[in-house]
Amino acid sequence: MSLITVGTMAFDAIETPFGKTDRIVGGSATYVAYSASNFIKPVQQISIIGNDFPEAELADMRARGVQLDGVEVVKDKPSFFWKGRYHEDMNSRDTLVTDLNVLADFDPKVPESYQGAEFLMLGNLLPKLQLNVIQELRTRPRFIAMDTMNFWMETAMADLKIVLRYVDMLMVNDSEARQLTGQFSLVKAAKSIMDMGPKYLIIKKGEHGALLFHGDQVFFAPALPLEDVFDPTGAGDTFAGGFMGFLAKTGDISFENMKRGIIAGSALASFCVEKFGPTRLKEVNHDDINGRIRLFKDLVNFDIELS
Amino acid sequence: MSLITVGTMAFDAIETPFGKTDRIVGGSATYVAYSASNFIKPVQQISIIGNDFPEAELADMRARGVQLDGVEVVKDKPSFFWKGRYHEDMNSRDTLVTDLNVLADFDPKVPESYQGAEFLMLGNLLPKLQLNVIQELRTRPRFIAMDTMNFWMETAMADLKIVLRYVDMLMVNDSEARQLTGQFSLVKAAKSIMDMGPKYLIIKKGEHGALLFHGDQVFFAPALPLEDVFDPTGAGDTFAGGFMGFLAKTGDISFENMKRGIIAGSALASFCVEKFGPTRLKEVNHDDINGRIRLFKDLVNFDIELS
Repeated sequence: MSLITVGTMAFDAIETPFGKTDRIVGGSATYVAYSASNFIKPVQQISIIGNDFPEAELADMRARGVQLDGVEVVKDKPSFFWKGRYHEDMNSRDTLVTDLNVLADFDPKVPESYQGAEFLMLGNLLPKLQLNVIQELRTRPRFIAMDTMNFWMETAMADLKIVLRYVDMLMVNDSEARQLTGQFSLVKAAKSIMDMGPKYLIIKKGEHGALLFHGDQVFFAPALPLEDVFDPTGAGDTFAGGFMGFLAKTGDISFENMKRGIIAGSALASFCVEKFGPTRLKEVNHDDINGRIRLFKDLVNFDIELS
Repeated sequence: MSLITVGTMAFDAIETPFGKTDRIVGGSATYVAYSASNFIKPVQQISIIGNDFPEAELADMRARGVQLDGVEVVKDKPSFFWKGRYHEDMNSRDTLVTDLNVLADFDPKVPESYQGAEFLMLGNLLPKLQLNVIQELRTRPRFIAMDTMNFWMETAMADLKIVLRYVDMLMVNDSEARQLTGQFSLVKAAKSIMDMGPKYLIIKKGEHGALLFHGDQVFFAPALPLEDVFDPTGAGDTFAGGFMGFLAKTGDISFENMKRGIIAGSALASFCVEKFGPTRLKEVNHDDINGRIRLFKDLVNFDIELS
C-alpha cells in the first residue's frame, strides 16, 4: 500500500502564550508525512518549496520513507511563510503574515512513480488543484480524503462542491462544517455534507475531540486531556496523517477500522502539540505511540451491564 | 440506600433559538429528583417553595418516590423565578430576571426521617448553607457531592473553600473550574481542586461532554451528538441526579462504577435537552434509558490491537 499526500511544505513563525519561534519548518504535507510515516512506507509527497527549505529536513523525511519526487523546487523564490499568534484558549488564532511565495505557482503534478497509490490525502488547497490531482491519477485510489477551509468556501464554493463529489471523506473543523452547510447542529451539518458527496466525514473539534460520521453511524474520540497544549499548529494535519497512515497500513476501510485510525491519529496529534512545529513528531517511536493509544483506551473505556 | 438532594424548586421562563416558554417548573433539585428517581427510591428532597408551586408537580414527584418532608412551603411568597435567554450556541445565556422570592429565606433543615442517608447531593447554593446541611447530618454520608457556581467564587470564596474540605466530589463546568483555580489547563485546574479537598472531580463541558478526575486517573464521556438541543436548562442537574442516583442504586463508589454513573447521567441529560423544562424526563422509561446508554457504548467503543 502507498499513500499520496498533497499539501504545503513551508515555514511558520508562531506565538503562543507559552513562547514564540522564528521561522521553523511547517506546512500541512510536512505534518501529514511525519505522522503517516509511523505506519506506512512509502508516503508519496506532492508539494512545492523554495530555495530556502532545509536539505536536512528533506533528508529526515527520506529517512522515514517519504518520497519527494513530487516536490517541486523553485530556485528563485522562498517557500510559503505563515506567521500567527494563538489566543489563550489555543482554539483561535490571528494570522499576522501570509507570504504565498512559491505557493502562488503551485500546480501539483503526480509523478509517474506515484501512479497506482491506493490512498490519497488532499491537504487544504485551492479546490481546482485538488481536483486536478484526482484527475491525474489513472487508477482511482481506493480511498480519497480531503481537507479544506473557510477561505475556499468564501472564494471558490462552486469548485469546492465539485471536488466533494469525487472524494470518500471530508475532514473539516466544526466551524467549517457549519459554514459549508449553514447548519449550526453538527449532526445536521454532517447529514448535509454527506449529501454533497463524501460518504464519510470527520469533524475535528480541537481540544474537544473528533467525530466520525457515516450514514447513521457516529463515533466520537476525545482529545487527550493534556496539562499544556504548547503549540497546536499542525495538530489537525498530524491527526489526518495518522488516520490515513493507519488505514493504508491495515488496508481496511471499514467503519470499525476507521475508529482505530481516529485513535491512532489522535495519539499522534497529542504528541504534536507538546512542542513547537513537528519537533516532537520526529522524536516519538512505536512504543511511545502504543503508550498513548493505551491512555485513550483508559480514558473512554467503560463497561455497563444493562438491567 | 437513599439520596438526599438539596437545591431549588422554582419557576423558569426560557427563550432559546427554537422557542420560548412562560413560567414553567424548574430548579436544580427538581431536575436532580426527576433524574435520580429513575435509579433510587427514596430521593429525599430539601428545598423551599412558595404559595404558587403546583400541587400536581409535587404529586408527580411523590409518585416517583421523591420524599418532600424537607421542602418548606412559604404561604405568603412566590417561588424562586429565573428568566433567561440562550444564545445560538446554547452554551452561553443571558439572565433577564432573577426574583429570589422565597429563596432569600432558605435555611435548609434535614428532617429526622432523612437522617442516615448514604448519599448527599448539594445543589448550587450559598456555601454556608451547604455546610449547614452537612453538619446537620449525625452520620456522615458515604458520599457527598456538591455543585457551585462562579457567583459564590466572587462573593463567598472563603466559605466555599471550607465546604470543599467536607465533600468527596465537586461538580462544576469548565469555566468555573478555571475561575476557582486560576488555571486555564483543565488538567492543572483538576489537580488544584483535588488539593482543596474533594478526592473526585467532575468537570462538565456541556455539548463537549464531561471529565471525571481522581488522583492520576481520568475518564471522559462525550455528550450524545443530537440533531437539536432544544433547551439546555437543567441538563447539568439532570446529569448530577443520574450520576448520584446510579451510585446510590449500586452502592458502589469505585472509580469504575463512577464511569458507569457518568454514562447514566449523560443518558438522562441527553433526554432533558429535548424539550422545555423537565417535561421529557417525566416521559422516559427504563427501556428508553437503556437504549440511550447503548448509543453511548456505540459512540465511544473501539478496539485496537497494539502491535
